[in-house]
Amino acid sequence: MAKQLNVTIWNEFRHEKTNPEVTEIYPNGIHQAIGKGITGDVNITYAVLDDPEHGLTEEVLNGTDVLLWWGHMAHGDVQDEIVERVHNRVLQGMGLIVLHSGHFSKIFKKLMGTSCDLKWREAGEKERLWVVNPGHPIAAGIGEYIELEQEEMYGEHFDIPQPDELVFVSWFEGGEVFRSGCCYTRGNGKVFYFRPGHETHPTYYNADVRKVISNAVQWAAPVDREYPRYGHVPVSIEPIKAK
Amino acid sequence: MAKQLNVTIWNEFRHEKTNPEVTEIYPNGIHQAIGKGITGDVNITYAVLDDPEHGLTEEVLNGTDVLLWWGHMAHGDVQDEIVERVHNRVLQGMGLIVLHSGHFSKIFKKLMGTSCDLKWREAGEKERLWVVNPGHPIAAGIGEYIELEQEEMYGEHFDIPQPDELVFVSWFEGGEVFRSGCCYTRGNGKVFYFRPGHETHPTYYNADVRKVISNAVQWAAPVDREYPRYGHVPVSIEPIKAK
Amino acid sequence: MAKQLNVTIWNEFRHEKTNPEVTEIYPNGIHQAIGKGITGDVNITYAVLDDPEHGLTEEVLNGTDVLLWWGHMAHGDVQDEIVERVHNRVLQGMGLIVLHSGHFSKIFKKLMGTSCDLKWREAGEKERLWVVNPGHPIAAGIGEYIELEQEEMYGEHFDIPQPDELVFVSWFEGGEVFRSGCCYTRGNGKVFYFRPGHETHPTYYNADVRKVISNAVQWAAPVDREYPRYGHVPVSIEPIKAK
Amino acid sequence: MAKQLNVTIWNEFRHEKTNPEVTEIYPNGIHQAIGKGITGDVNITYAVLDDPEHGLTEEVLNGTDVLLWWGHMAHGDVQDEIVERVHNRVLQGMGLIVLHSGHFSKIFKKLMGTSCDLKWREAGEKERLWVVNPGHPIAAGIGEYIELEQEEMYGEHFDIPQPDELVFVSWFEGGEVFRSGCCYTRGNGKVFYFRPGHETHPTYYNADVRKVISNAVQWAAPVDREYPRYGHVPVSIEPIKAK
Repeated sequence: MAKQLNVTIWNEFRHEKTNPEVTEIYPNGIHQAIGKGITGDVNITYAVLDDPEHGLTEEVLNGTDVLLWWGHMAHGDVQDEIVERVHNRVLQGMGLIVLHSGHFSKIFKKLMGTSCDLKWREAGEKERLWVVNPGHPIAAGIGEYIELEQEEMYGEHFDIPQPDELVFVSWFEGGEVFRSGCCYTRGNGKVFYFRPGHETHPTYYNADVRKVISNAVQWAAPVDREYPRYGHVPVSIEPIKAK
Repeated sequence: MAKQLNVTIWNEFRHEKTNPEVTEIYPNGIHQAIGKGITGDVNITYAVLDDPEHGLTEEVLNGTDVLLWWGHMAHGDVQDEIVERVHNRVLQGMGLIVLHSGHFSKIFKKLMGTSCDLKWREAGEKERLWVVNPGHPIAAGIGEYIELEQEEMYGEHFDIPQPDELVFVSWFEGGEVFRSGCCYTRGNGKVFYFRPGHETHPTYYNADVRKVISNAVQWAAPVDREYPRYGHVPVSIEPIKAK
Repeated sequence: MAKQLNVTIWNEFRHEKTNPEVTEIYPNGIHQAIGKGITGDVNITYAVLDDPEHGLTEEVLNGTDVLLWWGHMAHGDVQDEIVERVHNRVLQGMGLIVLHSGHFSKIFKKLMGTSCDLKWREAGEKERLWVVNPGHPIAAGIGEYIELEQEEMYGEHFDIPQPDELVFVSWFEGGEVFRSGCCYTRGNGKVFYFRPGHETHPTYYNADVRKVISNAVQWAAPVDREYPRYGHVPVSIEPIKAK
Repeated sequence: MAKQLNVTIWNEFRHEKTNPEVTEIYPNGIHQAIGKGITGDVNITYAVLDDPEHGLTEEVLNGTDVLLWWGHMAHGDVQDEIVERVHNRVLQGMGLIVLHSGHFSKIFKKLMGTSCDLKWREAGEKERLWVVNPGHPIAAGIGEYIELEQEEMYGEHFDIPQPDELVFVSWFEGGEVFRSGCCYTRGNGKVFYFRPGHETHPTYYNADVRKVISNAVQWAAPVDREYPRYGHVPVSIEPIKAK
């Protein structure tokens, strides 16, 4: 419970280098802004797309308790081999927090088994994320809702499996709703999808957004337990009668 | 996360006084045996049916983070007013762990909304509780299964709402299965039902059973958050157009 | 599948007698308007609060496949004994569709085990119910959303157990969201809560609302199957070894 | 509801050609035995691995309401392109029923997002599938349990996402349990995994197994509804204020 968590924040880190509007908001990259907001006893490492092996070597992943993922314009540049590696680690127990446009990342689609498609609009409209599961640890310390003055809209239908637990539902000024905080278990690992975080808005400086991400890191921490044994078990526990 | 939890263990405490077989196994009551097995930073209080207000005064309940409940032969003696009080506290956020024959307690039936009926047989048969959700915090430190040499059998159909999360499924020597570890959220509170613990077997001395209960106490801890506002909200957040 | 369903529509039928605004919209009662909208091979019976036994005699209930429930100002006038009777029938397999302010009915609260509280506002504002589960039979024939020009607002947090299946989420003009179409199984019976239907708006004449209710009637139909056996089963299926 | 369903039964069809023990039980292939057992208003087509495009052309799939899948020794021979095609059809609304060793098929793993691994043993042991969701349409007409005198054992942990609905849990003579009837929604399509059906046992002639498969075909039928629109929606439904 109280042990220090190793958190790796992965960012595509492309918009920040090419779009001055984004650079101004996130001069050190979205990953750094996210990292600055995570409270609790955590040891943070950063990894970006252009690092060797995208910064996600076997060693890094094996030492990661919870991985955060932000990607958008370059999902296709992520190597399939690295996606397999992350997938295996999630099944082994590593937590994964997928942020905003990461809904279309290879790793999220692979874990969900669906298209993960949705509606979207960039109009700088108001978003209000309502808490629909007030006893959930990811909602700790959050009021009735989180209000973001300007965000990109994501609208239903969001093509994901029904969440094991739904924590937030968004209201958008333009008339849509969205399941914005979605919990899943995949293998031994926990997965949380959190909607807000468009690159042209300062969302990751918002105190509530930071609180949610900090809560999610704790919630997604691996459970201390031996990995299950699978495969052939020729000897039965109980005797089997001849027939 | 790391804060001390106030745990109240409630026991009917009748079998131990009238059945020598039970007295021998649990000389100080089932509640004391359960309490001795709970690890972690907890402050334990005991309450029994014959205490004034069943030991569950407003003060005790308001100071309880997680309540454990063992009852069997005297469910009907629990006053409805106290059941209401416990129910309210669960909706406010208090965790509740219902053990074994507590499936037929007034409070569990009230929280579930179903009959909570099941099949049963006292034959001292073998039970094996398989972990079906290996990443769940309640399964931390538990192997592939928990084996109990002798237990009462509970068999399906168990008339409960589909659990939000199913952690254990029992195999019984006599041929039945049972959903043995079931998680629910009700209001702001978390509820865990854990099957084993017949009064004539030393189940609450079993190290794995104790580990599961200790894990469940941590899992069921209240989340630090203001209680939601309900009722009339005459003023809207956004303007409403005249029609 | 193709067999005729016996549908009983229960209505409190009080507003229609005392509030001219409601009488004008529903001159024959809300129940009649609902009944007129149900398509498919159904045999419809009406029952109201002021009927003997609220119109819900053992005979009526035993012959009912799916019961619809509209109540608001007189929840307290429903006798506990009749609530028990309806509850038993749901556990036996009868479908139950709870409409709008029925969220606070005794039967819904008993089946849910929570307060079923929510936020509300009567401002004649726009509601848009988005389909979030497009493959669900209750959403058959419905477009991306249902739009209601004027409705009472119900807002989160809605204090219900997490739905087994969530079909609709509402957007409200005033800034709130709501889980508006919620499926549950309780015992052998299926329960569907559907939000819209305030008495001062002509909601039950809306073609989409009628389609949803018609779909829900089919979905909630009982399954042809013997009721499970519960209780003592002294003889085991498999031999139990002496220990 | 009452419309005829187009059902395609896909079988690997290899064991039947190479293992005389299997040939004797299923002389015309497992697919034919499954097909003979499906009741209701269905139009059945068969497709096997060695057919051109595995018998799953665009035309065949577009005309299929529900696809059944049996595979085991040749999962790797199924072309990725065909798997993509089936996956797309499921997301569009086609039902999919995955049988027994199909748990390791490419299509099931792709839809689940997990390893779908499990424990197994071929010892001709007894299996008893208990109904844990008696109100579910897939359990219609089934008694308390289905008993199979001899089957291959599959044991937990079964590495699947938590089922949206769990209908059967198996007891095995050798001491294991298994979640044997698992319902999912993926996109607009419904997926049912049903455990029994090892090729060396006459499981698909069992009346209860046939009843479950027939029920599942009806349950998995597509819902008549337009496919959701996804992607860019530049124009909002409601006006967005300048900020």
